[in-house]
Amino acid sequence: MSKEAFFISEFSSKHIGDDGAVMGDFVYSKDLFCEDIHFKRSWMSLTQIAQKSMLVNISDAIAMNAKPTLALIGVVIPKSFSYEQLRELGAGFQKVAQSYGVEVIGGDTTAGEKLMISITIIAKRPSKVLYRSGAKLGDFVAYTGTLGKSHKELTRLMRGGTVGHNARFMKPALKAAFVSKSAKHLHAGMDISDGLSKDLSRLLKASGNLGLHVKRKMPKKTLCSGEEYEMLFTFDSRKKKAIERIAKQTRTKMTIIGKVARKRYVCRCKEHHF
Amino acid sequence: MSKEAFFISEFSSKHIGDDGAVMGDFVYSKDLFCEDIHFKRSWMSLTQIAQKSMLVNISDAIAMNAKPTLALIGVVIPKSFSYEQLRELGAGFQKVAQSYGVEVIGGDTTAGEKLMISITIIAKRPSKVLYRSGAKLGDFVAYTGTLGKSHKELTRLMRGGTVGHNARFMKPALKAAFVSKSAKHLHAGMDISDGLSKDLSRLLKASGNLGLHVKRKMPKKTLCSGEEYEMLFTFDSRKKKAIERIAKQTRTKMTIIGKVARKRYVCRCKEHHF
Repeated sequence: MSKEAFFISEFSSKHIGDDGAVMGDFVYSKDLFCEDIHFKRSWMSLTQIAQKSMLVNISDAIAMNAKPTLALIGVVIPKSFSYEQLRELGAGFQKVAQSYGVEVIGGDTTAGEKLMISITIIAKRPSKVLYRSGAKLGDFVAYTGTLGKSHKELTRLMRGGTVGHNARFMKPALKAAFVSKSAKHLHAGMDISDGLSKDLSRLLKASGNLGLHVKRKMPKKTLCSGEEYEMLFTFDSRKKKAIERIAKQTRTKMTIIGKVARKRYVCRCKEHHF
Repeated sequence: MSKEAFFISEFSSKHIGDDGAVMGDFVYSKDLFCEDIHFKRSWMSLTQIAQKSMLVNISDAIAMNAKPTLALIGVVIPKSFSYEQLRELGAGFQKVAQSYGVEVIGGDTTAGEKLMISITIIAKRPSKVLYRSGAKLGDFVAYTGTLGKSHKELTRLMRGGTVGHNARFMKPALKAAFVSKSAKHLHAGMDISDGLSKDLSRLLKASGNLGLHVKRKMPKKTLCSGEEYEMLFTFDSRKKKAIERIAKQTRTKMTIIGKVARKRYVCRCKEHHF
């Protein structure tokens, strides 16, 4: 068990295990976004850092088919930051928050060494919540968009190269419209933050230690690329047409990778953080 | 304006300004608790660090007379931590959470260099919310408990000394019973996290740039000691008897320091973080 899994398992709450925790009418989620863990300052502007941190947090809510409405932001701000730099950071948060109809209602800042962002998103519980645990034997397993770009870009950045403003690593493209329209047909769903293989192993584990019967073997760059923030989902094979129609309507590429099977699925990718 | 105040002011939300943000039926709050900013690892055990981080977050809810119910915990965990150390940390969070009836519903962990804790508390909105902005001209201004210990202990720790397990700096003593019983009589309230003088200046500013007519001059060690987590509050002078009765019932020491006056109050303490 990883240290993260161990630590989380110390809290026996039944709400832990999905991208967010469902309580009453709300879905709560919280992600950390830290300098030299998730990003290097030399790679991205402060606006990009703020935008990505907000996007990956909003992604948790959207992956469960919840509507994000409120945000709390905690930031450890390097002592050297100027007012102009603070303004850039603030603008990045606000831009993404506003584009998703999220209101920043509070937070906390403190002066430190490295930039560290902790965001909590409060989302409205939808009539159909998408859990990881809903996959059923025989379900089709699919993902949205393309996979592999984020890892490729990260590798380039780590070698001292640069990537464009609209690179996946800088600005994940969430699939909010597809999820909200298709959720009623889906059995299980989550976003792909640690790589298709790793996240699929979590989904199948949560659904009762199930497995995957693959359609065709996939390359490592597809399986193991983290921080893609595409949707991973499963559905009854009879819903294929309906879901493909919604994908077309919302201009969302979708790829069926196989079917849920009995033999337990194990991820073989390495951890992707640098 | 401090960088913190500036950054927060970039978000124009009307909910920002109190210990927590009141939205619908809930009060949300979030505080950071960071190694080498708020504490040094050599000063406290991991259990103490976890306990204090949870207590100071719960304090925000209680200071607004809200009942904390749920918590999300984000932790940057030093890579060197053993499973035993993680268990200590987890036990500290759980102990305080349980003693206040708070359920830990989720969170996020990531491996890093220094220990950093970010907690979000979700509390039930009470029928009477205590805001900073409620103070009125002529109100009595008072605080609970004693002030000065935390700063004295911090000074000792910074000089290489030690303090006991039950030291104020290790374990703030929140005044939940006093607040819940007296809130209906109070005009304004907040907890004392950055020192009586600093927090009073915030309360009086939020109440319309009001001032304080002091009863008697107070020493700096009382005015400027941060991280006390005692309650600061104001009330109509006619409620004095009722509030003193509740203080007695709940075994809470209270000290009236003066009356709300017209001339703007300015804090002259230095920032207290090391």
